[in-house]
Amino acid sequence: MIIVLKPEATQEQIDHILNDIKRLELKPHVSVGAARTIIGVIGPEDVIRTVPVEAYPGVENVLPILKPFKLVGREFKPDDSIVDVRGVRIGGGTFTIVAGPCSVESRELTLRIAESVHSLGAKILRGGAFKPRTSPYSFQGLGEEGLKYLAEAGERTGMPVVTELMDPRHAALFDKYADMIQIGARNMSNFTLLKEAGRMQKPVLLKRGMMSTIKEFLLSAEYICSEGNMNVVLCERGIRTFETETRNTLDISAVPVIKQLSHLPVFVDPSHAAGRDDIIESLALAAVAAGADGIMVEVHPEPEHAKSDGEQALLPEQFAEMVRKVRAVAKAVGRTV
Amino acid sequence: MIIVLKPEATQEQIDHILNDIKRLELKPHVSVGAARTIIGVIGPEDVIRTVPVEAYPGVENVLPILKPFKLVGREFKPDDSIVDVRGVRIGGGTFTIVAGPCSVESRELTLRIAESVHSLGAKILRGGAFKPRTSPYSFQGLGEEGLKYLAEAGERTGMPVVTELMDPRHAALFDKYADMIQIGARNMSNFTLLKEAGRMQKPVLLKRGMMSTIKEFLLSAEYICSEGNMNVVLCERGIRTFETETRNTLDISAVPVIKQLSHLPVFVDPSHAAGRDDIIESLALAAVAAGADGIMVEVHPEPEHAKSDGEQALLPEQFAEMVRKVRAVAKAVGRTV
Amino acid sequence: MIIVLKPEATQEQIDHILNDIKRLELKPHVSVGAARTIIGVIGPEDVIRTVPVEAYPGVENVLPILKPFKLVGREFKPDDSIVDVRGVRIGGGTFTIVAGPCSVESRELTLRIAESVHSLGAKILRGGAFKPRTSPYSFQGLGEEGLKYLAEAGERTGMPVVTELMDPRHAALFDKYADMIQIGARNMSNFTLLKEAGRMQKPVLLKRGMMSTIKEFLLSAEYICSEGNMNVVLCERGIRTFETETRNTLDISAVPVIKQLSHLPVFVDPSHAAGRDDIIESLALAAVAAGADGIMVEVHPEPEHAKSDGEQALLPEQFAEMVRKVRAVAKAVGRTV
Amino acid sequence: MIIVLKPEATQEQIDHILNDIKRLELKPHVSVGAARTIIGVIGPEDVIRTVPVEAYPGVENVLPILKPFKLVGREFKPDDSIVDVRGVRIGGGTFTIVAGPCSVESRELTLRIAESVHSLGAKILRGGAFKPRTSPYSFQGLGEEGLKYLAEAGERTGMPVVTELMDPRHAALFDKYADMIQIGARNMSNFTLLKEAGRMQKPVLLKRGMMSTIKEFLLSAEYICSEGNMNVVLCERGIRTFETETRNTLDISAVPVIKQLSHLPVFVDPSHAAGRDDIIESLALAAVAAGADGIMVEVHPEPEHAKSDGEQALLPEQFAEMVRKVRAVAKAVGRTV
Repeated sequence: MIIVLKPEATQEQIDHILNDIKRLELKPHVSVGAARTIIGVIGPEDVIRTVPVEAYPGVENVLPILKPFKLVGREFKPDDSIVDVRGVRIGGGTFTIVAGPCSVESRELTLRIAESVHSLGAKILRGGAFKPRTSPYSFQGLGEEGLKYLAEAGERTGMPVVTELMDPRHAALFDKYADMIQIGARNMSNFTLLKEAGRMQKPVLLKRGMMSTIKEFLLSAEYICSEGNMNVVLCERGIRTFETETRNTLDISAVPVIKQLSHLPVFVDPSHAAGRDDIIESLALAAVAAGADGIMVEVHPEPEHAKSDGEQALLPEQFAEMVRKVRAVAKAVGRTV
Repeated sequence: MIIVLKPEATQEQIDHILNDIKRLELKPHVSVGAARTIIGVIGPEDVIRTVPVEAYPGVENVLPILKPFKLVGREFKPDDSIVDVRGVRIGGGTFTIVAGPCSVESRELTLRIAESVHSLGAKILRGGAFKPRTSPYSFQGLGEEGLKYLAEAGERTGMPVVTELMDPRHAALFDKYADMIQIGARNMSNFTLLKEAGRMQKPVLLKRGMMSTIKEFLLSAEYICSEGNMNVVLCERGIRTFETETRNTLDISAVPVIKQLSHLPVFVDPSHAAGRDDIIESLALAAVAAGADGIMVEVHPEPEHAKSDGEQALLPEQFAEMVRKVRAVAKAVGRTV
Repeated sequence: MIIVLKPEATQEQIDHILNDIKRLELKPHVSVGAARTIIGVIGPEDVIRTVPVEAYPGVENVLPILKPFKLVGREFKPDDSIVDVRGVRIGGGTFTIVAGPCSVESRELTLRIAESVHSLGAKILRGGAFKPRTSPYSFQGLGEEGLKYLAEAGERTGMPVVTELMDPRHAALFDKYADMIQIGARNMSNFTLLKEAGRMQKPVLLKRGMMSTIKEFLLSAEYICSEGNMNVVLCERGIRTFETETRNTLDISAVPVIKQLSHLPVFVDPSHAAGRDDIIESLALAAVAAGADGIMVEVHPEPEHAKSDGEQALLPEQFAEMVRKVRAVAKAVGRTV
Repeated sequence: MIIVLKPEATQEQIDHILNDIKRLELKPHVSVGAARTIIGVIGPEDVIRTVPVEAYPGVENVLPILKPFKLVGREFKPDDSIVDVRGVRIGGGTFTIVAGPCSVESRELTLRIAESVHSLGAKILRGGAFKPRTSPYSFQGLGEEGLKYLAEAGERTGMPVVTELMDPRHAALFDKYADMIQIGARNMSNFTLLKEAGRMQKPVLLKRGMMSTIKEFLLSAEYICSEGNMNVVLCERGIRTFETETRNTLDISAVPVIKQLSHLPVFVDPSHAAGRDDIIESLALAAVAAGADGIMVEVHPEPEHAKSDGEQALLPEQFAEMVRKVRAVAKAVGRTV
């Protein structure tokens, strides 16, 4: 950590800082320049971080040197992690397609979509039983009944299922029905929920908050890992910007950036990034090309009658066409679907 | 709602839409222009909103006419709401100062800060016992012990207390110790928590998410109100932008904009917006001048030893000076502190 | 255009609006709903746009129906445009690589880089002679001398050259040396310069401003086209967001979105989007996969001695490797490099 | 400047960096930590900035210590600057109101508005003769004719006039008619224009680009000052964010932040920040309270017939009411209008 002092910082202020640093058994190193005095602090950055150095009188700026996360970092584990979701291995050179409806709407429809996407190449089934909706007057999901239908559809097609956990009090329920726990974008900084997910014995699909930096995203994954659950898949799903042509702006750079910082697998959700069905295929292909380990997409046979997010659902035939092209690009970059 | 069709939309596609609209007992009205056909839909917008109109084949764009919220809107209740927090009335021409430490760190310090801010003009005491921290390795709060210290400090000084609820399982605990429930910025879209807060019999201080629009902010308040709790105070605390000189960008325009859209009181939190102590006074004065009903600020006698957010805490003497100026500006705009 | 009136709008206010609309020879159509009265206006949207309808007393909101641009739109010209840059055809199923140094630094280095990128697959040579730099103390380019070196390098390798115009007074100079005129991101809304470029007889590479919407980007292209120059190539180069791991956030969705709205070719500049060399390859591959017509990248044999943007320059060997992979992905999506 | 090396940086890479630093006659200082080696570089930061240190093999990150601007900084000139605009002194404890129409539309209307705002308290007259419009089909201003009308209105009322320069070729024209040169937000990074303004003998009103950080804003002012013209007034006018209730988001924090970093006067333009007339008064009051040296607002007697920006123009009676309140708040914070 580098502490930059104000030009007018007094010796007394400097000594106050140095004393407190030494009390923490850290080593300060002072450099006096023409315009500024700076203090370098050597030692474990996690100890240093407990001190609000910006708050000391005389301090102008504080520059961290080390990364704020550990367990999820490449320095902790240099090799790519592979996450096993009831037999489906995510990461390590394969490209995995997760597909299904936005919401579980009925038993029949869920089975029908599951069979369709499975036959077309999906390896994991998605579907929401508890839905985070911006308005309290929108469809909120079927609840436990929805979990049952999803689990049944997964069993019938042989696909593991992933579904979103919104309430820490539902942990036991999800343990029973889900193979993978999804933490949604709106809950990426719901630390209560992250800790609960960390204590469950299931792999977690963590979506990036639309307002979150990559560093914060990795720190949220660190919350899960620090509870003992290292089976985390990160999912980029678009960030919020000023552009309104798309619901969010897919941050495709996040894929290679996270790959450098972390050993965890990285997915892309082109459906939520786009918020419209007509550019999902392009974004899915970009995800494969940029190095993602998989995608998650929404499929519905009648989008105009979907109870949520119909405008971004692919028809089964659009999904089929997308998978065909995804395979071609995956092959071109040396990966298997 | 106005449905804009693509230039190439077929009559069959138009009929498909019209049939479904009529089935919902809504009245469509078709206008054929030179470049586009548009369909106006008249009827209750909440019914219309259940239909994913964008997902119909042939649709280019959908333009909503009505606002998506009800209970929190001026059209539902034209007069300003006043929220009573154990005797302290928020809104209606007064300007209320909430102050206290970021975290409850110890019994002694909490008492000391409470007495200090009370004597200087604060009407409500703030302090976090459960802390949402970006890193799992940062101080996470004293928990129930912290709630006790805060309640004691409130009692000793005669101030009601506000503190952040992070876990829906803590509702009973907060019912016991807190006078006002804070929902933090990171949980503004944690709908599970919003519903829980709506079922509690306490007023709620709802902070705006750092990347939430004003409309989404009001919809989160609607979640609370729709559970039967209309005692909600909205708090602007800065949004995330590209600017890095401040932790967040205080959206001062949100104050007059929300005042027009909603009857609920509006607060400003200059401490979290700034993320640095040296501009808090300026932002507090701007808040009064722009029409806010109150501010919430962090105060600490030794910011450099604070366990969280020390860099943005005011010293008691800075707080005193700020209150003095806030009173002068409040008077100039015809309000009482 | 749809005009939404306030609930309290008076008949007098409505008549004032209707009269002014009729005076423009447009047809208003009034619909009275339970909550709002709305006025639909049919007629040429460019005439309607000259009226500041939001400013009329009683108006709550105005919703445009038609797109604000014409010449650059798909409705004006449904087929993809092909832009010819001295024999190199951009668009129409090919994928074009533009490469070269950020700045023209010397005659020798420019020749050396030109020969290198040409032999590795680049079709057009880039290089800046006049440089837009955030600080007045940074290297500002070699000026006319730089243009000469660039033109010579283009001639020696047989590649057309593209270089950035910053000053409308340089039009004649650029006419002499450049084959394609680049308008940089910082000047995307410099309408004086756009008009000047529109009057030149050269194809234009227009870069998207870092905080410009896609609609504004297309309107800037419209400025050029409306002066009679339809040879415009649009270049997405990243937008400014809150994320700081990359210099800008590449808006990869802009590629398919612009392809739907406009007939003009679309390029991607992964170098400026990333601001770091280590993820440029991933972004370039994403660009091909997403449907871009080409990329523009910066190459330098000794990035650490470059006079500008060294941190984002590719070494010739990195460039070679990138081109190899770009060819593979291009083939997978049915295009030729 | 602090250079953070990658954990795997080799001694050879470190020596390469050290040699180049020494060649610039700067002093490097190496600290070897457990996790990272860092190099501190002492010496004139402007020399160091010419080196693209991020581009050296082995470098992970570079942390600047000093501020990138000089002439505009408080360290260069600790006392507040006062800018004299033909007898009107901006800065130094007064609060100055600039008002007028968005565009100069006709001689009569300009005179009428000038007389009106002058009688109500405005000290400087604004009005655009050359207008930067997003669409090439919108009203582009009256040109030289508009400059004449504006100058005449200024003369008749005794107010100096400020108007926007868009084209460097118009410098002589503006020298003749304008008392203060405005550089608009869209041209804040048009360095050609900034240099031209720096060479003129007139004070400059520089508006912040909607995509620009405060540091970049100050660097643009530095461009003007470095040409010898220190009479610059900075104007915050809103930045672009995801919020759509207002045209831009007024960054009110920019006022106290710039006041700390720079000695130049700071204005606020609430009209362009809001993009709607109904919250301009609130923003103007916030500006006074936060410490701005003045505001610039748009006034029009018939906003619905204005040729540009009618939706954000104040009626003369709204302007009068705003000035009355501005005076009260200014008095409360110890300033004179």
